[in-house]
Amino acid sequence: MTEIIYKTTETELYTLIEFQIQDGIIAPEYLAQLTPPTVNARKGVILSGRGPIWLYASLIHFYHPTVWIACYDPRIGAVVVQSHSPHVKLGEVIPLEC
Amino acid sequence: MTEIIYKTTETELYTLIEFQIQDGIIAPEYLAQLTPPTVNARKGVILSGRGPIWLYASLIHFYHPTVWIACYDPRIGAVVVQSHSPHVKLGEVIPLEC
Repeated sequence: MTEIIYKTTETELYTLIEFQIQDGIIAPEYLAQLTPPTVNARKGVILSGRGPIWLYASLIHFYHPTVWIACYDPRIGAVVVQSHSPHVKLGEVIPLEC
Repeated sequence: MTEIIYKTTETELYTLIEFQIQDGIIAPEYLAQLTPPTVNARKGVILSGRGPIWLYASLIHFYHPTVWIACYDPRIGAVVVQSHSPHVKLGEVIPLEC
């Protein structure tokens, strides 16, 4: 059975969630049993890891209630993709502290 | 200036949104001025196109109110990544009618 391993690192501003698909392969059916880590919704979430767009999309949906979400792009940094905060803007690049 | 061209095709069950980044390159700042097409929220949305994960993530957020969202993966099909409908399940693959 496919497994995703999550590593979370919490800073003052955000929770960094690094995920790893154990054998590198994941089937769409797996989305139904996704159990991403619970986070402090008053902080942002940064997602980082190698996986298909539909896995990211499900995680984005899961963390929708958090104040903001960014996706880590190795070439750019953590790009903010949704924000409920007036202080964090869409498209902003968040510097990683860790 | 970067532009994204959207092509929408509406069927009985969903709206297929095919996007194309005009010159193939997009900067994160562009997310702040994203204007995806309006859809019938009572139908699903299928997103299809080549672009960075953070662009998809922003589109997913934009279409959050729709009944379900799927991402088209050329190797698999349209994978459901969020659903507010009891009839459409996470991870389900939606057959394209067009």
